[in-house]
Amino acid sequence: MTSLARHKQVFGHGAPLFYDEPIELVGGEGVWLFDSDGRRYLDAYNNVPCVGHANPRVVAAVSAQMATLQVHGRYVHGLVVDYAERLAALHAEPLSALVFACSGTEADEVAMTMARLATGNRGFITSEAAYHGNNTDVGRLNDIGGRVGAGKPVDPEVRGVPLPDGSRRFVDGVADAIRSLDEAGIGVAAVLMCSILANEGLPPLAAGEMAEVVELVHAAGGLMIADEVQAGFARSGCWWGYEYSGFEPDIAVMGKPMGAGIPFSGVVAAAELVERFRSSTRYFNTFAATPVQAAAGMAVIDVIEDEGLLDQIPRVGDHLAASLREMGVTDRLGEVRNVGLFVGADWLDHDGGPDGEGARAIVNAARQAGVLIGLDGPHGHVLKLRPPLVFSMADADHLLDVMSLVLAAAK
Amino acid sequence: MTSLARHKQVFGHGAPLFYDEPIELVGGEGVWLFDSDGRRYLDAYNNVPCVGHANPRVVAAVSAQMATLQVHGRYVHGLVVDYAERLAALHAEPLSALVFACSGTEADEVAMTMARLATGNRGFITSEAAYHGNNTDVGRLNDIGGRVGAGKPVDPEVRGVPLPDGSRRFVDGVADAIRSLDEAGIGVAAVLMCSILANEGLPPLAAGEMAEVVELVHAAGGLMIADEVQAGFARSGCWWGYEYSGFEPDIAVMGKPMGAGIPFSGVVAAAELVERFRSSTRYFNTFAATPVQAAAGMAVIDVIEDEGLLDQIPRVGDHLAASLREMGVTDRLGEVRNVGLFVGADWLDHDGGPDGEGARAIVNAARQAGVLIGLDGPHGHVLKLRPPLVFSMADADHLLDVMSLVLAAAK
Repeated sequence: MTSLARHKQVFGHGAPLFYDEPIELVGGEGVWLFDSDGRRYLDAYNNVPCVGHANPRVVAAVSAQMATLQVHGRYVHGLVVDYAERLAALHAEPLSALVFACSGTEADEVAMTMARLATGNRGFITSEAAYHGNNTDVGRLNDIGGRVGAGKPVDPEVRGVPLPDGSRRFVDGVADAIRSLDEAGIGVAAVLMCSILANEGLPPLAAGEMAEVVELVHAAGGLMIADEVQAGFARSGCWWGYEYSGFEPDIAVMGKPMGAGIPFSGVVAAAELVERFRSSTRYFNTFAATPVQAAAGMAVIDVIEDEGLLDQIPRVGDHLAASLREMGVTDRLGEVRNVGLFVGADWLDHDGGPDGEGARAIVNAARQAGVLIGLDGPHGHVLKLRPPLVFSMADADHLLDVMSLVLAAAK
Repeated sequence: MTSLARHKQVFGHGAPLFYDEPIELVGGEGVWLFDSDGRRYLDAYNNVPCVGHANPRVVAAVSAQMATLQVHGRYVHGLVVDYAERLAALHAEPLSALVFACSGTEADEVAMTMARLATGNRGFITSEAAYHGNNTDVGRLNDIGGRVGAGKPVDPEVRGVPLPDGSRRFVDGVADAIRSLDEAGIGVAAVLMCSILANEGLPPLAAGEMAEVVELVHAAGGLMIADEVQAGFARSGCWWGYEYSGFEPDIAVMGKPMGAGIPFSGVVAAAELVERFRSSTRYFNTFAATPVQAAAGMAVIDVIEDEGLLDQIPRVGDHLAASLREMGVTDRLGEVRNVGLFVGADWLDHDGGPDGEGARAIVNAARQAGVLIGLDGPHGHVLKLRPPLVFSMADADHLLDVMSLVLAAAK
């Protein structure tokens, strides 16, 4: 039996796999991945191995710490404290205290609990095309607009708002949602949004829009939670997406790239919010705040700082987006947007509408051509280019060469 | 500022730490832990580093895989498939398909969702002193009896049953709970219990009791979920606690020792249950089913098999329990129970009642004497000895020597 057939047997035929012809990977190095047929792929998709696949500094840090000590967080550990302080210091005041968790889902739920405890309210507002996690509590915020959850029950405590489009509908949507939650006697605990609306396909967020949302939610007695699971750790060219988008959250949630492949997530907030969470819950997570996570996390920050990635990321990302825009290979490539090294390009049908099926074919064609990209947005028609942060200008040009051919063929 | 003061500042004063005088750890090897003052501690508490701290085979496996590839599970990966098949083969038929997750909490929730989908029912039955996880959905099952959650709202979908005590109250409790859920029109989705009732302090589970519970829940259209997060991976001297306790679950949940410190958990069930879960949800977990988890997991199974731990564990555990029983240092040491290398010893007040405060003092005294143990049970009065699985007879004798002095002093 092939590995693919065995995979489907042991994990179920419905287990998610990328591409019509899934890839069996055997190795990775920097921005490259290698399959079992000896073929290499330029990785323009993966954000967890943010400092590159098998980054030597991450490997060395994790290996050394594994050989020394890996234990849960009910003991004090110097490196864990050092890392926590270093991570907190990368955030704006008053965000200074942390709760570590394992997955982004877990961290989002900690943030939600924190907001419920702090405000006494139960309501949450997010974008109607959000995805924040895979469990029951956090999952209530997913895809309220219905792409995935058609027929899923309406949750009385959750409101979705339309995506920004240059009009006032995004900010007005938040105001409407607050009013609706207040009228229902639920009140708003928090607006919880990705700070760059990444899963939403990077819709055009005007300067000041998120800051206006913060004002509205504060006036209603709620908090602002920035989900930095995708936006954080320099993806935008700023350390945090909330800096890029120009607002100050009360709570920020971090995940994916945080441990460069070692499961690790966290919530940063003002000390008072963390203290209230700690004293009101008995929250403990066996797999959070451990020395190996801290070692991996330190290596990630080291590489981002030492390799000048905060400068490189916007240069490479802007070049990618500008080049795609100018490529002119086809009129079906619509708007191209980028936030640092996160590029979203709309793929349109012949009438100018979103073409999710066509975009999916392009992703599969790119895979066959040796380049890995993904999909995003409420209609699945946004080509997502989100490579490891170490992606260079030369890597970008290689990607553009291949995409030029793939897009031309899809005309 | 001391590391402890810095820890409290960055994680909050309410962040859980062991011992009145917390320990700052710097290293570990086998069954030993080392603190920042150069002091060593015999570890008779930690179950995650099940094959010993810094086990060389785990370190080598994780380091080699980190240097080769670490990526999420939407690609096929040979080692991940190999590990999944090997793990499934350790379970009884029809448990043959897997959903991997990151933490035990996540895996318990996957199992609950699986049961809800398969049965169409919403109700869960657990012991009244259970702890199954730290999130909203799973947390509804925690401590229904009220030790921790005094004042917490009663969840209409959850029932707690009294602990086994030699009478019929445990099995009768399940029957009552099923009746109550049926009368409320909720129905029973599953009985979800630790297969050895570990957090409950290992109360005396008579032969056949769990099997009777399975019959009752099946007759009511519900499933049996064995939580193996503490009981699994040879802790009992069997691979799984459900073998030790003599029953056949429909779903088993694994966690803690699975990755020897690399966050890793999973759910094993019949293929039909997994297929239904996959097709009904879009469950994906970025940090689950990855090559590094599989490498760590393989090393764990290798060590358990190659070092003959399935034989050694009951011998050492029985020796520990028998020796404690015979120690006779004080009449305040009540019943001593063990399930393999998991020992629970009741600490009693002068009237023979549970003495949680006294037990806590003993745990602190043992820590000062260089031995790490914990607490368990509904009154926190059960001394918990749950060392790494590689604990030898000599380690046990060292532990007994120290415990003899500590218990005598607590008389």
